[in-house]
Amino acid sequence: MTHTVTVLGATGYTGRELVRILAGHADLLVERATTTSRAGVALADVHPELRGLTDVVLEGYDAATAAASDAVVSCLPHKESMTVLAALARDYDVKLVDLSGDFRFPDAATYEAAYGTAHADPELTARAAYGLPELFRDTIADAPLVANPGCYPTGALLGLAPLAAQGILEDVIVDAKSGLTGAGASPGAATHFAKANESVTPYKLFTHRHAPEIATHLGRIAGGSVPVTFTPHLVPMDRGILSTIYADLSDELDEEDARKMYADFYADEPFVRLLPEGATADTKYVTNTNFADVGLAVAPDGKRLIISTAIDNLVKGASGQAVQNLNLLFALDETAGLLPARKKESTQVHA
Amino acid sequence: MTHTVTVLGATGYTGRELVRILAGHADLLVERATTTSRAGVALADVHPELRGLTDVVLEGYDAATAAASDAVVSCLPHKESMTVLAALARDYDVKLVDLSGDFRFPDAATYEAAYGTAHADPELTARAAYGLPELFRDTIADAPLVANPGCYPTGALLGLAPLAAQGILEDVIVDAKSGLTGAGASPGAATHFAKANESVTPYKLFTHRHAPEIATHLGRIAGGSVPVTFTPHLVPMDRGILSTIYADLSDELDEEDARKMYADFYADEPFVRLLPEGATADTKYVTNTNFADVGLAVAPDGKRLIISTAIDNLVKGASGQAVQNLNLLFALDETAGLLPARKKESTQVHA
Amino acid sequence: MTHTVTVLGATGYTGRELVRILAGHADLLVERATTTSRAGVALADVHPELRGLTDVVLEGYDAATAAASDAVVSCLPHKESMTVLAALARDYDVKLVDLSGDFRFPDAATYEAAYGTAHADPELTARAAYGLPELFRDTIADAPLVANPGCYPTGALLGLAPLAAQGILEDVIVDAKSGLTGAGASPGAATHFAKANESVTPYKLFTHRHAPEIATHLGRIAGGSVPVTFTPHLVPMDRGILSTIYADLSDELDEEDARKMYADFYADEPFVRLLPEGATADTKYVTNTNFADVGLAVAPDGKRLIISTAIDNLVKGASGQAVQNLNLLFALDETAGLLPARKKESTQVHA
Amino acid sequence: MTHTVTVLGATGYTGRELVRILAGHADLLVERATTTSRAGVALADVHPELRGLTDVVLEGYDAATAAASDAVVSCLPHKESMTVLAALARDYDVKLVDLSGDFRFPDAATYEAAYGTAHADPELTARAAYGLPELFRDTIADAPLVANPGCYPTGALLGLAPLAAQGILEDVIVDAKSGLTGAGASPGAATHFAKANESVTPYKLFTHRHAPEIATHLGRIAGGSVPVTFTPHLVPMDRGILSTIYADLSDELDEEDARKMYADFYADEPFVRLLPEGATADTKYVTNTNFADVGLAVAPDGKRLIISTAIDNLVKGASGQAVQNLNLLFALDETAGLLPARKKESTQVHA
Repeated sequence: MTHTVTVLGATGYTGRELVRILAGHADLLVERATTTSRAGVALADVHPELRGLTDVVLEGYDAATAAASDAVVSCLPHKESMTVLAALARDYDVKLVDLSGDFRFPDAATYEAAYGTAHADPELTARAAYGLPELFRDTIADAPLVANPGCYPTGALLGLAPLAAQGILEDVIVDAKSGLTGAGASPGAATHFAKANESVTPYKLFTHRHAPEIATHLGRIAGGSVPVTFTPHLVPMDRGILSTIYADLSDELDEEDARKMYADFYADEPFVRLLPEGATADTKYVTNTNFADVGLAVAPDGKRLIISTAIDNLVKGASGQAVQNLNLLFALDETAGLLPARKKESTQVHA
Repeated sequence: MTHTVTVLGATGYTGRELVRILAGHADLLVERATTTSRAGVALADVHPELRGLTDVVLEGYDAATAAASDAVVSCLPHKESMTVLAALARDYDVKLVDLSGDFRFPDAATYEAAYGTAHADPELTARAAYGLPELFRDTIADAPLVANPGCYPTGALLGLAPLAAQGILEDVIVDAKSGLTGAGASPGAATHFAKANESVTPYKLFTHRHAPEIATHLGRIAGGSVPVTFTPHLVPMDRGILSTIYADLSDELDEEDARKMYADFYADEPFVRLLPEGATADTKYVTNTNFADVGLAVAPDGKRLIISTAIDNLVKGASGQAVQNLNLLFALDETAGLLPARKKESTQVHA
Repeated sequence: MTHTVTVLGATGYTGRELVRILAGHADLLVERATTTSRAGVALADVHPELRGLTDVVLEGYDAATAAASDAVVSCLPHKESMTVLAALARDYDVKLVDLSGDFRFPDAATYEAAYGTAHADPELTARAAYGLPELFRDTIADAPLVANPGCYPTGALLGLAPLAAQGILEDVIVDAKSGLTGAGASPGAATHFAKANESVTPYKLFTHRHAPEIATHLGRIAGGSVPVTFTPHLVPMDRGILSTIYADLSDELDEEDARKMYADFYADEPFVRLLPEGATADTKYVTNTNFADVGLAVAPDGKRLIISTAIDNLVKGASGQAVQNLNLLFALDETAGLLPARKKESTQVHA
Repeated sequence: MTHTVTVLGATGYTGRELVRILAGHADLLVERATTTSRAGVALADVHPELRGLTDVVLEGYDAATAAASDAVVSCLPHKESMTVLAALARDYDVKLVDLSGDFRFPDAATYEAAYGTAHADPELTARAAYGLPELFRDTIADAPLVANPGCYPTGALLGLAPLAAQGILEDVIVDAKSGLTGAGASPGAATHFAKANESVTPYKLFTHRHAPEIATHLGRIAGGSVPVTFTPHLVPMDRGILSTIYADLSDELDEEDARKMYADFYADEPFVRLLPEGATADTKYVTNTNFADVGLAVAPDGKRLIISTAIDNLVKGASGQAVQNLNLLFALDETAGLLPARKKESTQVHA
């Protein structure tokens, strides 16, 4: 049975990517897509990548119409998303996934400190699931709203969770490098090609909103606060986030222990690829996929681990993960639309 | 029913891409992949993109084993491919698709002039189909071997065919710009990042082997010889070929006539996207797809048409088109594995 | 003796590049730089590349103050430039170089057709020199104003001039590929990194303003009209224009004739590098220089020549050429500030 | 007076860059350039960037001939460089600069541990100067040999020296991002465009040879050992190294203290640009210059400082710094050939 989806704010990159992925999903159908400014325009005219893949025409937002779908996925900017989704949650029975930062903090006060704005619905944010299935799968299916994680936090948390779960994290530095789609679809000085090309630079040192998001959910896993320093960089490429994570440990680990810890932790996860010994994560190999690659290297003294993780910021870091969450919400195979189904080989009479 | 495929020479980019596409194909299964030098290595260790998508382990080539598959697709270099496939065609009943240039010329003499080597099987090459389905679909299903077109010829011929079919082509210049995957997976001076980046340059002026390939098949459509000048360039990007095609016409055309001619010609083609008036083809929008985008602009005097076409050189220009050919060979839906199947919306009780 | 220069509109790329080049010029000094919107800001805060190279602080424009310099170089947008420079030419005795398109057409009617606006001073534009020294050197030193050529026309005209001078050009196609600095410093959809990267596309087919500019000055050299088709493209790199030029000839040429023709024509030009036989121009090798590289290839039938030229669009295509023109205006060595002075080796007692 | 220079091993990128810079140096002349494999070839045919800038023809190496120059700069690979330079130092009186890693460790044992090979001349390496003028200027002019620092250590040490000099460094992580020229001119799998583009990945975790180089010289400044974790990354761009440096401090610092400390330390350094408050270093702005940009950000608790530094790996990280060292060896202005000389404005009768 096909479940229908309304996409709110489909003119940005996460909206485009969501529609692209769902075009290949057998059981989820994008029924409508909204816009504040371009109603009446074919979505494929906004995103030429989508020509031939969708006939959806952008329309203005109307709560009742949106809520008539089986799910609403919001690609709206934060603040705006909060208002719209809080109203939908209150008035309708519809599955909700939010790609903004508005519902990622169980504690509204943390949100308010990070985003500098009061939260519209502290009670709802307290009940929202943080939609990182590999770490919080059990909370997702029944949540009134799924807050899709930030791109940087996805890469950071997947790299750190096994250590956090062991309670051996003392200090963490996440040095992350993102492609330019991470900066969104609106042109600006920092994303102008002739500025961004041949350039690498860090930004928002000690002040990026993803730092408290990482700390919040890392603390949930660790069962207590872990200090996190987070430094994002822009790198001249379209897609991908590489996180180079420096984890200082309270206990010594050797390479074998570390690998076993991660292998066990992610044993059943179809989207986490633990890399072979000596290999490091590389954005190249996860582009256009929902995979998260994880590489490990242990310091000679065993007290520091460097974890490298790579994700596609628009897929596992945004819209792919949203589809993973939709799959959980509709009790579908979690990999539907994201990984090919396994084929059975034909009976080989010729063999 | 699943049909099985053996991929010959799977360590290059076209082999990688073929396996990636077939991983998402419901009815075709890559059963084995061969190599001359890396037998015993997991294919996903050669191409880390494939981790989690395939368990195939590379093996040495054996004719009988390969021929036990339902189809053999050769990603071998030219010359080598010719020998192997001629033997398979002679000794076995197995469907054959060749991605090299060895069987793209019905006339062995043209091949020999272009490639500087005698042809191993002139009779087979005369009977091979040139696997550009939009132009030569009828010849493919029953051919003893399908010669998958070159990447540049695919973009050029799709841009020129409607004019050639009208018999109004007088002179043609194809100025083509390719991403670096077009130069293959073997490192060399021209593909060294610090050389190729921030660089654009033409190569093989008046001497590229794809020029006679374009001329041969354009002549088939036009029913006579058309002069073709072809100039390839390398452009600092991974994928995509933009062909800017200057077509001098024997009859004047206006914009409306031209658009109608192309719209009619490609009316039923799922992979050809005729762009809106004023739009030009852009490699960006075809990446990782089997689409060919086509844009038109007519000179003020109506005697020259500039056609811009964009394809992904590894998909429509190579492995995607090979899958399209396999679909035809096995009488599957031609878009299987290349486009999402159309979904039926759920019965909307809520609507 | 140092000559002083005022730069009008220094917040764009050509202004930045001009200041950078002049910082290394022994005899020309940037005395002031104007802006319409950022007066009081240090130029090096607008262009961080210039930190440590200039102390100039941006100021508002005042005609008398500007005219107190020995030369005024305008990097203003077209139309605005025309008004300001026409007034300066009328009221003051100061050398003038204009980087906009406003004075590139001796005939104001051609300008008006191309730019869609009336010309403010048709008499001045008729007397202005077209500042492409290799082709029109004699007209520059005494001109009331030097119109610095467009970036695309510079590459095209240098490639075509020797043929035009022989009167053997029948038809010309210029297929040009530019880096993104050519699109200016203002962010927009087409120059957004995540759009422009991994993209190549043509624009303004049959309608770019540089087409009539090329035709005008090519006609001056040829002594009559030559049909020109010009197609610009954006290529994902910072700098450089590659022009692939298809010249159809009224007389047959062989490789040796063609090379001799070009070698003779450019024999004394320090900035034109005629490439060795078989070599093609490459933007990589001219970056940050005032060189124009020229490669030649003759069709087998001798009736078509492919000329490839490469320039740095911001140097030979803009600010470097402006410095070349300033050198001529001040009777300095034409290469001053653009090429290292030749050194004499020390007397070698050890030799 | 002109001093002559022989360049050993000029076919790589550092050799090319050295010749390019020296072409613009009034007092240093590249007299000859050696090669092991391409004797007789014009240097400008190996490096087309140099066409029009040098007439040097590559020749085989001969010690006496090389030593007849006033200085020998070695761009040879390590090990090879050691042998050649040790012999020159023993037999001739000629100034020596080495761009390899062979003489960067005063203690041969450290070299041997890092490079896995015995040192050919421990006594010479003990007396060699480490040619980072901003930190060790006094040792350079009279040294028997100047070991030009590694590219990564240059960026790291300039970022850390002011803290090391205060003795407040407790722990250091250097997360460095390099353009592809840093990987040299020899093609290989990691530097193949279609691999390196759209890719960012760390390499040689805990094992890169530049780690002990950083630690050695940081320890000299700090007067004792400082733990250093160093992680290099390749980023898809030509040039530049961004170092994001995490410095854990034994004393708390606030922003103002930190800025004052760095401003005082580098007050007289023409090549170090301390960035304004809030700004971060960006490779874009140092390309093709000998500048090192330094940005500072202090953690809220004052115990961690993030220093970002940017250099051009081929200039300040290699050949530009070699020219700076040659200037010191010949008692020339340290900025000669690297920064424009300051101009005096003309007497302004018009002002």
